[in-house]
Amino acid sequence: MRIDVLTLFPEMCEGVFSSSIMGRARDKGIVELNALNFRPFSTNKHSTVDDYPYGGGGGMVLKPEPIFAAVEHVMAEADCHAASKGTEGESEGSTVSSRSKPRVILMCPQGETFTQKKAEELAKEEHLIFICGHYEGYDERIREHLVTDELSIGDYVLTGGELPAMTIADAVVRLLPGVLGNETSAVTDSFSTGLLEYPHYTRPVDFRGWSVPDVLMSGHHANIEAWRREQSLKRTFMRRPDLLLGMELSKQDQAILRRLKEQSANGEDKLSKLD
Amino acid sequence: MRIDVLTLFPEMCEGVFSSSIMGRARDKGIVELNALNFRPFSTNKHSTVDDYPYGGGGGMVLKPEPIFAAVEHVMAEADCHAASKGTEGESEGSTVSSRSKPRVILMCPQGETFTQKKAEELAKEEHLIFICGHYEGYDERIREHLVTDELSIGDYVLTGGELPAMTIADAVVRLLPGVLGNETSAVTDSFSTGLLEYPHYTRPVDFRGWSVPDVLMSGHHANIEAWRREQSLKRTFMRRPDLLLGMELSKQDQAILRRLKEQSANGEDKLSKLD
Repeated sequence: MRIDVLTLFPEMCEGVFSSSIMGRARDKGIVELNALNFRPFSTNKHSTVDDYPYGGGGGMVLKPEPIFAAVEHVMAEADCHAASKGTEGESEGSTVSSRSKPRVILMCPQGETFTQKKAEELAKEEHLIFICGHYEGYDERIREHLVTDELSIGDYVLTGGELPAMTIADAVVRLLPGVLGNETSAVTDSFSTGLLEYPHYTRPVDFRGWSVPDVLMSGHHANIEAWRREQSLKRTFMRRPDLLLGMELSKQDQAILRRLKEQSANGEDKLSKLD
Repeated sequence: MRIDVLTLFPEMCEGVFSSSIMGRARDKGIVELNALNFRPFSTNKHSTVDDYPYGGGGGMVLKPEPIFAAVEHVMAEADCHAASKGTEGESEGSTVSSRSKPRVILMCPQGETFTQKKAEELAKEEHLIFICGHYEGYDERIREHLVTDELSIGDYVLTGGELPAMTIADAVVRLLPGVLGNETSAVTDSFSTGLLEYPHYTRPVDFRGWSVPDVLMSGHHANIEAWRREQSLKRTFMRRPDLLLGMELSKQDQAILRRLKEQSANGEDKLSKLD
């Protein structure tokens, strides 16, 4: 996979792209991660990339030319790479045409809210291009004629699209085959049960007088599993009841939830202490 | 304000903390931004910060000792700064005790979903400490006895808490007085109307045959305002109808929405083309 982040602040990305799991995936050649400044694609002599909005009002608007030019540059470069690789086995033409078109993703508060499902969808692509504005608006023609997706990572206002683009890149890259080793996948994958995780404990058994629950040291696997399932259900019920809607639950799970609901209706505040 | 990010990968943060608006806020002395590795706070000779979970199962769990020690180190350091500043005007003791306690924020998928409202709440604090795990679980005693908040930035799985912590820091820092100049605040602040932004256009009038809507070049301010309001409502109705729930809308707004609903019910796909 190839990921290009088009930004006025490429220096924001390098530390993230070269560290930890993304850095390792890049070193292994699983993903190519680039941050490209689109200012040099400006067509005017002052290298400006924004201008005043038609119709008046405050704020500045990112001009269409530099963004279109930067995206087209990155697409052409990727085609070139693919073609030169393609000569090994196939004819150039067929390789280029068989490649899927890049997803051109505009980071903006008006976009679709990014979710794990979207991460899985994007992880199947060959090439993602992120366009990151920075506290300005985008000229509408970028939306209408260049981008394939508009994404937001949540309902909060940020100074730019760089952190959201890197966040999405991180969520996507960790899903690529060969990126997560077994040692790293297990804990986070427990999230994919649809429930929040149960509490974890590690050594020491006693830390400042606070102990690990006895059941976890009992060696009784069935009891441990039952405790963990109950804790997961409890935490999900308390914090994110929306996640339980439409979930398929076993009879045991349903019994636990009924009990939690009764306790909650009776205003038993023990519940919150247990959680 | 002081912000400390406790992480095993402090090199992920420096590029973000020194660029653009966060970098400028830091240079102006409005915010102190630190990324601190908590590995040196490990109490064992191999500097390990994680260990196997009690009760078995895959994955590793972050141990309580290094996290508690790193948070306490940062708190003591902040107290020290405040005390040394306090000697100018007040007695040391009273300054230390009058400072508000830091918010200790655990980044985790089980946390409360971060919103703009939470950003506004955190912007009133003097000191934020973010704890960033990295694909491991946290020992539950960190949750129970150290943190004041557990936050998530959205429903997707990431490899670590660093990008979420920096995202929250960005949303908070831009709200601090003196950080955003007038030139930068106007466009993004239009988001705070509760509606998605209307389309923006800037020069050139004609780009590759795609033109700026005539109304924006009419010079007729009332028409421009009406067009923008309608576009905002339309976009919000099409993309994020949830934002309209509970909003106070004028009679004109309500009339526009009624028309959009009728068109939508009639299956007029002109609507989506107009948007």
